[in-house]
Amino acid sequence: MEFKISRDFIAQIEQLISENREKELQDLLEDIHYADIAEIMGELDDSGAIYIFHILDSEKTAEILLEIDEEVREKILRELSSKEIAEELDELSTDDAADIIAELPQDRKEEVISELVDVEHAKDIVDLLRYDEDSAGGLMGKELVKVNENWNVLTCVKEMREQAANVQRVHSIYVVDDENRLKGRLSLKDLLTTSTKTPISEVYIPKVDFVKVDTPDVEVARIMQKYDLEAIPVIDELGRLVGRITIDDIVDVIKEEADKDYQLAAGISQDVEADDSIIELTRARLPWLVLALLGGFITVKVMGLFDAAMKAHGELFFYTPLIAAMAGNVGVQSSAIIVQGIANNTISGSLFSRLIKEVSLSLLNGTILAIILILGSHFLLDVDYDLGLTISISLISVIIIASLIGTFIPILLNKVGVDPALATGPFITTSNDICGILIYFTIARAILGF
Amino acid sequence: MEFKISRDFIAQIEQLISENREKELQDLLEDIHYADIAEIMGELDDSGAIYIFHILDSEKTAEILLEIDEEVREKILRELSSKEIAEELDELSTDDAADIIAELPQDRKEEVISELVDVEHAKDIVDLLRYDEDSAGGLMGKELVKVNENWNVLTCVKEMREQAANVQRVHSIYVVDDENRLKGRLSLKDLLTTSTKTPISEVYIPKVDFVKVDTPDVEVARIMQKYDLEAIPVIDELGRLVGRITIDDIVDVIKEEADKDYQLAAGISQDVEADDSIIELTRARLPWLVLALLGGFITVKVMGLFDAAMKAHGELFFYTPLIAAMAGNVGVQSSAIIVQGIANNTISGSLFSRLIKEVSLSLLNGTILAIILILGSHFLLDVDYDLGLTISISLISVIIIASLIGTFIPILLNKVGVDPALATGPFITTSNDICGILIYFTIARAILGF
Repeated sequence: MEFKISRDFIAQIEQLISENREKELQDLLEDIHYADIAEIMGELDDSGAIYIFHILDSEKTAEILLEIDEEVREKILRELSSKEIAEELDELSTDDAADIIAELPQDRKEEVISELVDVEHAKDIVDLLRYDEDSAGGLMGKELVKVNENWNVLTCVKEMREQAANVQRVHSIYVVDDENRLKGRLSLKDLLTTSTKTPISEVYIPKVDFVKVDTPDVEVARIMQKYDLEAIPVIDELGRLVGRITIDDIVDVIKEEADKDYQLAAGISQDVEADDSIIELTRARLPWLVLALLGGFITVKVMGLFDAAMKAHGELFFYTPLIAAMAGNVGVQSSAIIVQGIANNTISGSLFSRLIKEVSLSLLNGTILAIILILGSHFLLDVDYDLGLTISISLISVIIIASLIGTFIPILLNKVGVDPALATGPFITTSNDICGILIYFTIARAILGF
Repeated sequence: MEFKISRDFIAQIEQLISENREKELQDLLEDIHYADIAEIMGELDDSGAIYIFHILDSEKTAEILLEIDEEVREKILRELSSKEIAEELDELSTDDAADIIAELPQDRKEEVISELVDVEHAKDIVDLLRYDEDSAGGLMGKELVKVNENWNVLTCVKEMREQAANVQRVHSIYVVDDENRLKGRLSLKDLLTTSTKTPISEVYIPKVDFVKVDTPDVEVARIMQKYDLEAIPVIDELGRLVGRITIDDIVDVIKEEADKDYQLAAGISQDVEADDSIIELTRARLPWLVLALLGGFITVKVMGLFDAAMKAHGELFFYTPLIAAMAGNVGVQSSAIIVQGIANNTISGSLFSRLIKEVSLSLLNGTILAIILILGSHFLLDVDYDLGLTISISLISVIIIASLIGTFIPILLNKVGVDPALATGPFITTSNDICGILIYFTIARAILGF
């Protein structure tokens, strides 16, 4: 039941824009969800997107502004006056409004804030701008329903009705004391099933999960997932209730974090999309390729050390890409499992037991692969006994070393506080190429003697 | 405020278990969240975990059963009678209960179902077992609050109070007709802010997002994310309301899908964790390594075709790992961006414009890298002019081809209905190794003439 945006539909809209048929466009877009309109605007050229934005009413455009691609948003915001931006923000929840203000240039920020009509809303937004965007404070919104522990349910319901009118979705009703310190919560179910005469102090649940304003966003995501929470209150240093984080914001954090790790594993260092500009894509990709190229230089140098082998055992050089590929693949597998284990907090046991496990695993995999290699080289490639032995022993050794490098570099990085995801992909394949080739030729020299 | 499980705490629990001090264990675990107890049980040996399970009351154990590692769960379920399992399931929501039953052997399934006390609950669970676990039907639960469009608000509130008692979290109130066909929804906010005398037909929102029972789970996740939904109703072929999916189930789908793509990109073909057994890890990793090894054979064969170069231009062979590494890295980058773009539905434009973009991007990256390569080879490796030219032209060509392979293989797979994530990692690096080396030696032969 999702709205499907067809090429014909886009063409129809472009036609209507070019003929300036505002009323028909409004009618056409009337029943379409803001997320779909944002997608449609992404398909249009800039002037078309801005045209659409201007003919819709601000309730819809505010949500569109949130959904749309960052670049298109930037262009639209540049076209709008500070007063117009403030009108959009008045329609949004505090956390979303703060996110958009944070994207504005410094001088415009203040102008836009001064144009906000609702003073309470403006105060909340300014408060949210103080926090780091990757912390609980940066994620939270100010919209929440809270009641005083000293009230009775009747006062409560009255107050809540008023508060709920400003809150899009009521997740939980928080209970605070006179100093606004978080004491507990009331569930919506309690609200529906408890008699209105009960005093709050008797019905509230004193045990409540919370995070602090400076808790990192990925930590908040992990806690909410672990404890299966749809919303979590945020407290400041003094234990006062200052905001709440809802699960939909956490879905974005989880998605972003997963995308980031995935891109790092593929050697892409910034958050880019297929539709980004060539310059942006190059900036994200080139550094890793330069790293790989420098690693490549080292492999050339390493092989240069063994060029005496060229005359008597030239075939040795035919196997270097095979050895390098195996080292790279094993290393990436090991590092991926460790990086995920660290992220999901599912790694138990000591470093030593991990070492034993990786070595056993590599011995098993390496032996199976060496057997395939021996059979393959014998029947397919017609390799003599000594060379076959050299390649097989090298393969097993390289696999063991590669898996140890793949396992322990991420663990090490994590220990010193660096994102272990950095050590997947090109970093591991490049180091393993170098080590693999060095091990291979060293073993070859020992066996074949050149 | 998350509970931190220390080694000391585990040791204390092991001590209490060995001394059979049941009461003290119960007191110790009393205030600990089920998710934390599940984690603690994961750290104990099997008999310890089962001991803990037996001394806790079924309200807590049911939730623990859901949270705990699949292997530990399997062992615990084997220890329990069908009646005991049914008691646990009676505490769980229908979707969670159905998930656990689905893991049981066929003969036990029926036994357990026949032991369920609550007949309505049992009927719902049996109904859910019909659906594919990767579809909306497999994700949905039966717990929802629905009202008839023909009721007035008074009847509604009374009915809802009763229904809400069986529902853990009230997300939305769905409106159906006499045939149980989904007509629309009532928001909780409306409930809190509307006078109780209003008739339903006047307040309900006729526009409601929904999915069908056979919608794939990743599609449900995408829709709920796109439209920012916390719950979505599920309808059957006749438009009847049969269940609802909540955002916490979707968080799991997103996480699993991201983990799966990440693992595929790293050459790991099943959902494994660092703590899985060596056999399981081998089963997930070995197939990709065999693929890479077979690819390696082909690179050996390809180089064999050019062995005439060995005498006059032996240094050519020093560069094969460098060329292969660059081809692999570029290919993985391109495929990762496309795979993510396909997953997030953010790829626009024609195949031809994508082709132009990839070629331009590769030309830019390739030229920069070739310049670094020429300078590096000249100053670091003392390479002569012809060889330098050969390597540079090869590098640019290989980068272009590798990025095209990386881009279009996932697109092609997606078109024929295969998961494009399969084409990241080892698959792309192996094909690119082969193509890269073939291109390199072909260009070398053309320039150097051997």
